[in-house]
Amino acid sequence: MYEGIVQELIDELGRLPGIGPKSAQRIAFHILQTQAFDVTKLANVLLEVREKVRFCDICGNVSEQDTCSICRDPRRNPASICVVEEAKDVVAIERTREFRGLYHVLGGAISPIDGVGPDDLRIRQLMQRLADGTVQEVIIATDPNLEGEATATYLSRLLGVLEIRVTRLASGLPVGGDLEYADEVTLGRAFEGRRVVTG
Amino acid sequence: MYEGIVQELIDELGRLPGIGPKSAQRIAFHILQTQAFDVTKLANVLLEVREKVRFCDICGNVSEQDTCSICRDPRRNPASICVVEEAKDVVAIERTREFRGLYHVLGGAISPIDGVGPDDLRIRQLMQRLADGTVQEVIIATDPNLEGEATATYLSRLLGVLEIRVTRLASGLPVGGDLEYADEVTLGRAFEGRRVVTG
Repeated sequence: MYEGIVQELIDELGRLPGIGPKSAQRIAFHILQTQAFDVTKLANVLLEVREKVRFCDICGNVSEQDTCSICRDPRRNPASICVVEEAKDVVAIERTREFRGLYHVLGGAISPIDGVGPDDLRIRQLMQRLADGTVQEVIIATDPNLEGEATATYLSRLLGVLEIRVTRLASGLPVGGDLEYADEVTLGRAFEGRRVVTG
Repeated sequence: MYEGIVQELIDELGRLPGIGPKSAQRIAFHILQTQAFDVTKLANVLLEVREKVRFCDICGNVSEQDTCSICRDPRRNPASICVVEEAKDVVAIERTREFRGLYHVLGGAISPIDGVGPDDLRIRQLMQRLADGTVQEVIIATDPNLEGEATATYLSRLLGVLEIRVTRLASGLPVGGDLEYADEVTLGRAFEGRRVVTG
């Protein structure tokens, strides 16, 4: 144990996800010993973030205003909505520059084990966005894992009654990967989703 | 890229040691999304740490006063000084409850590659502490790696001229480890330092 405030810093850092006691200690000592490290900057950014950042009223993405920069952008196609689990998925998809529509952030995925059901996600808000007939396609881009698949299945059934095209991101071999290292499920999906190249 | 302050938070977190861009992003979103996370507490502790924590005038350990709690403790044996590289080594040794003397924190180890020479360490201050003849043993507890060994060798030569017992922590097999997994150097050291058990 360290003296008072140093231990407090280690404890607080240890509350962050993915940071164990050893990492917390290393970070704390880095902050203590590195005069060049701007601790005031970090502290102020932390306070500012909690104060400034809210979630977009429309899509649930992080935003510094009532609506996020994507929902405010008139160049985005309002006929297409991509449904993701988390705000960080929005950034991942934006990086591909493949998608020019709007997003809808669910805030998680259906997971009975964690006690997360459909009512805990922003599904009602999604249905409201689909009510006026503007949206023609909903792309379900939940994670390709158990919870993400369950959520995708739930959503596709729910949206099946509407006159809207519902699609799901393709599963298959990751680009740049080695076929022999792919797990059976991924390889199976790659077969299932195989596409005609010629003939 | 995220909007303004969120990206700033990710950038600032990414400056911490051992935190890459992905971890920084995960931590930032944890802070954003978890209402229960006390961001104000973390921010205040960060500011308080930089304001309050100094290094002990005597031994160089972290302290909230001019001298640290160990140097102030009259029950500690002033005839024995354990020399370590970093303040966190003090905590590691204190946990063993094996040592009741005082410490001296060098602030690093000699490393020509990183441009750290003897003058960059608190070696001069150590020599000053040894001047009045109180100290009878200096235990060198630098890390058992290249830089730590170089520093230990340098110190043992420097202290060799004084009428002081100089010792070095034993190298050998880690307790609870498997002999077959020990590297050659460690196993070699364990042989070199073998002790008579009987006979």
